[in-house]
Order: sequence, then C-alpha cells, then structure tokens
Amino acid sequence: MTAPPFLVTPVILSGGAGTRLWPLSRRARPKQLLDLTGGGSMLALTAERVTDPALFAAPTVVAGAEQAEAIERALPGLGTLILEPAARNTAPAIALAALAAGWDDLLLVLPSDHLIADAEGFRTAVRRAAPFAAEGWIVTFGMTAERAETGYGYIARGAALGEGVFAAEGFVEKPDAAAAQAYVAGGRHDWNGGIFLFRAGAMLDALASHAPEILRAAEAAMAGATRDGVRVHPDRAAFAASPAQSIDYAVMEKAATVAVVPVSVGWSDIGSFEALHAVSDQDADGNVVVGPGLAVDAQGCLIRSEGPLVAAIGVEDLVIVATADAVLVVPRRQSQKVKDAVEKLRQEGRDQCL
Amino acid sequence: MTAPPFLVTPVILSGGAGTRLWPLSRRARPKQLLDLTGGGSMLALTAERVTDPALFAAPTVVAGAEQAEAIERALPGLGTLILEPAARNTAPAIALAALAAGWDDLLLVLPSDHLIADAEGFRTAVRRAAPFAAEGWIVTFGMTAERAETGYGYIARGAALGEGVFAAEGFVEKPDAAAAQAYVAGGRHDWNGGIFLFRAGAMLDALASHAPEILRAAEAAMAGATRDGVRVHPDRAAFAASPAQSIDYAVMEKAATVAVVPVSVGWSDIGSFEALHAVSDQDADGNVVVGPGLAVDAQGCLIRSEGPLVAAIGVEDLVIVATADAVLVVPRRQSQKVKDAVEKLRQEGRDQCL
Repeated sequence: MTAPPFLVTPVILSGGAGTRLWPLSRRARPKQLLDLTGGGSMLALTAERVTDPALFAAPTVVAGAEQAEAIERALPGLGTLILEPAARNTAPAIALAALAAGWDDLLLVLPSDHLIADAEGFRTAVRRAAPFAAEGWIVTFGMTAERAETGYGYIARGAALGEGVFAAEGFVEKPDAAAAQAYVAGGRHDWNGGIFLFRAGAMLDALASHAPEILRAAEAAMAGATRDGVRVHPDRAAFAASPAQSIDYAVMEKAATVAVVPVSVGWSDIGSFEALHAVSDQDADGNVVVGPGLAVDAQGCLIRSEGPLVAAIGVEDLVIVATADAVLVVPRRQSQKVKDAVEKLRQEGRDQCL
Repeated sequence: MTAPPFLVTPVILSGGAGTRLWPLSRRARPKQLLDLTGGGSMLALTAERVTDPALFAAPTVVAGAEQAEAIERALPGLGTLILEPAARNTAPAIALAALAAGWDDLLLVLPSDHLIADAEGFRTAVRRAAPFAAEGWIVTFGMTAERAETGYGYIARGAALGEGVFAAEGFVEKPDAAAAQAYVAGGRHDWNGGIFLFRAGAMLDALASHAPEILRAAEAAMAGATRDGVRVHPDRAAFAASPAQSIDYAVMEKAATVAVVPVSVGWSDIGSFEALHAVSDQDADGNVVVGPGLAVDAQGCLIRSEGPLVAAIGVEDLVIVATADAVLVVPRRQSQKVKDAVEKLRQEGRDQCL
C-alpha cells in the first residue's frame, strides 16, 4: 500500500484528433497540440499543471503512434510514451498505462486537451484525493456543473467519505435537457471531466472484474511490446483485438469503489468554438479576435486567423476561423455542428483539408 | 454630320479600382479585370458586347496607366488605349477620348465593370439612339428602375423625340428613400447607368460650355501626349491640373441637348456583393457557391473562394469571400459597408491586403 507523502504519476491521454475545432484541429495537428489560449499547447499546459516534484513523478503519455515526435518535442521531461498502434478509446489506453506502472503506483489520468484555470486548486484536490486512491478507491474529480449541458456525463455524489470526498452514486452519460436541469438545480451532480486518480492495481482489478477482454488484450499487447528509449510500442495485433470502450462505460459506471472529489477549478474541455469563446478574453463588444482580424460593428464573435486577414462586418455571435487552406463560418451557438460538416467533407471525399 | 449606316466607337472607361468588392477587387486587380459571372472579366464582357462590325469600330479604352498590360492582354482588338496619368473621374477621361476621336465620330461611353444580360437588346437601343446622337443629342441610356435604390442617379423622361427616345428632363443623384420610391412608382424615371452615346464634337462643345477648365486641361494633356502603338500617354502635369468631376455633374445635369433612351436589358453595376448575389445563379436554398465551398443548413448566402475551402454552417443571408490572403464576412444586406471597412484598414495602415 502506498503511504504518504504520495507520489503521483500523471498519465496524459493524447489520443483522438477531434473534429470539433476544425479547421484549427486536423488529423496531423490534433487539438491537444494547438495553442488555443495563447499560453502554449493544450498538451504542454496539461503537463505543466502536474510538474510539482513534491507531488508528481515524470508523466506517462499514451498517444497515437503518429504523434510521437510532436509529443517528445512538446514534453522534454516525459517519463514514458506509450504509442497506441490503434485507437481503442480510453479504457484500453488506461489499461496499458496501468500495466506499465508498478502495482502500487498512484496514477492521475488526464485528458491532454482540457483547460483548468486554477491549477493550484486542482493540485490541492489531487492531494485530498491521494489517500483515498491509496486505499483503493478510484477517484474521479467532479467539475462544478455550471449549466444544464447535455453533452457531458454527470456523477452523483453519495455518502461522504471524508472532507470533500464522496462515494460516487451513479454516472449518467449525456442526459436529456430536463434531467440536466434537474442535476444543476439539485446541486448533487458534477460533470465528469475524465480526470481520475487510482492505484494502478486497483484499476487492473476493476478491469479484471468489469472489462476482462480489454485487460487481456492490453496484457498481451504489453507482453509483446518493444521499447525504444521512453517509447513503448505495444503489440499491434494484440491491442487491435481489444474492444473500444471508454473508461466510463467499461469501469466507472460499474465499479463499486468509485469516489468523487468535487472541484471548482475553471475546467473546460474546450469542446467547441462556443466553449473556446467562453474561456477567452473578450473585448467590450464580446468579440475575441486572435490573429489578423478586423471587427466592424460586430458583437459576440470569435474571429481567429492563422494567416489571412479576416474582416467581419456587422455580424453577431459568429465563429469565423481561417487557416491557410480552410475557412469556417458558423453561428457560435451552433458550433457543435462543425463535426457534422467535417463528417460531410469526409463522406464526399473532400478530405484534403481534414 | 454623320450619316447612316452609323459606325460607333466604343469608349470603355476602365479607371478606378473600386473597393466595394474587396477582397476580390484590389488595387492591382480592379473589379473590371475580375471574372464575376464565370463568363470572363467584366472588361472582356463589356468589349464583347460592342463587337458587331456592322455597328462598332475598334474600341478606345481610357484606363489608369498601371493597367496597360492587363488591358492589352484582355482586349487584343483594342483600337486606342488612353492611359490616364492620374485619376480625375469620368469627365476628364471622356474629354480625352473625345479629343482623340474625329469631330463627327459617334462615341459610345461604357463603364468597364457593368453587366448587361441582354446584349442584343442593348445594341438595338444603340441603333435607335444613333440618329439622335448624329443630330447632336447627348444620349443616355435609362435603365429600368427596378427598385427604390438610393445609391444610383435617376433621369426623368421629358418630351418624346421619337419612338423610345425622350428629351431628358433632369438628373437626380442619389435621392432619399421617399424620392426614390416616388420615382419608381411614377414610372417616368430611369436609372442613370453611365452609358452615353454622342458625337465627339457635341461633347466637346458641351464641355466648352459647362466645364471649360476640364476641356482646357484635356486639350493641353493631348497636345503634349506621347504615342506608342495603340497607347496614348497624355501629358501628366497638364492632365493633373484638371478638376476631378463626373460627366454627370460636369455636363449631363447642365447641357440642354440630353436625350434618354429607356432600356430594359438586365443591367447591373454589380456595385456590391448583394448585387453580385442577385445576378448569380442561386441553388434551391438561395446560395451562390463559387470555388471550393460547403454550405450546410445555409440559406441566401454568397460563398466565394479563390482557394481555401469555405465551410458555412447554419448561416443565413451572409456574404463570405475568401482569397489567399483575406477573408470577408458580412450580412448580404450590409454589403455596402465593405467599402467602409476597406477605408478603415487603409487608415490603420493595414493596406497590404488592399
């Protein structure tokens, strides 16, 4: 059993390109490698958040093989880089990281492309969660549900286990609007931000109970893995045999020993241009202009260019994003439709810009 | 006096870059050199409209000196190319062309950047007007006023001079909305499309009476002109001394011998993106997509790209124009504001894209 002071190994999940921020995000330049806030790439910001040497070991990153160079460039202090030979969602990725770690290691799983404004508040919550994780709890961090968002998962708080730590009573993925409103009004539900702290062994036990096929595939993939410096290449065929499931579905919704630590740390998954607009500094007219832009009689717009001069005249609540080879224009409140447009481009075979 | 059959020399005015179609139109690529309709440049379409050898001589073009190569490339059949050493509006340009012609030559002045859908109807009107021009009338072509446009000039029809030919009773430049509505309702007013037919000598007489300074400057500029093939270079200093006035202001509003021939020939000055949208083929949702574009749940949009893929999602009545170095987004009905934005860019010294 791990004892205090706790040392936590960050496990940064850098899979998935994401299409919701197209044309900024591309197959070759996934969202986590973008500088969306002006402070560095989402990946670098994620790693920075967990660099306190009194609390954190060097991070493990689990990523698509094609990202290897970009990640090593972005994170010189990397401990282990596990390169997935195929995308299999988060449960298999976490299984690989848990197998690569020591049985008693505390692992902090972090999506690579989320924003946390209050990094110190987050670390305080990790310190609070650590003794519970050391005892065998799989701890999730519950993000304050700020609005009745239907695109997120929600966690219900159950019995208190300690100061600011609760047994998780249930996970609800993407509720309908009425349920989401009830959750926000009730004050007992938090958003599931996909950040988890646990002992590697506790997660492997939970996988053995609830997702044995995933564990078996990950074990075979790691048994056949090749190593090259910090890089670990799990066996392709063995890993490809794994079911593709999220950790929420495979484990969190089923395991009995899940705890939740509610936090209010300015979390955003920047899952749409609407969300990017919300977390950015706005001018007096509610516009966010990044790159060469001109807003005339414009209000509430996100205008972002990586090159061309963008002139927006007389428009309201619009997202305008220009790169060298693509331009997106969409009402801010419809920005979740971007992924449908990308899907349409793909179906039409017009994927040179994807 | 000119006698039938009449031979008419087209005088195509190709001055002024125009900023209302920015970022398509640029200093180095004025509107008349753009292919806005898919049928060729506005200049080439203008010249094509007046190529019937039974009616038209080789055209004279009056243009800014920096356009010489582009115009010679676009119009191999060019008769005379008068290169203005400075922009002085239309009256001085027309004075140069009238001085370069024979006293009795019939000149048909045409803006280089207007659209006429019914070219044969237009030529019929020119044939109808020719005998009146030969008699000394300065004939304007009155475009059917299709709406209460406040940005145009209007001509009132007076007494009939013949079949479809009237004495002009008055010019009104840019009336207020109430007046424009009255003109359209009254049915006695036409738009002034800036197309004129006259004997060179009649115009020179009118200039002598109503704009003697312009005539004097043009005479001095032509007396000091150098010639080089079809190119005529009027004397810079002499021409620069001319007042800058439109032919409407300098002559049409003052001369007594102005006639109007009403025509309904699908005229448009394509003076805004709204106008370009109106004259273009629209799909079932009212969208016009030219170049690589994707319209999803979009209606009434003009989407035009010279390179980048433009994805427009969930937007209505929007103009989106993308070039390699600039992107414009403006509501269609506010597209007259484009020129203000260009002015703002100029004032801010951001003129690399202008």
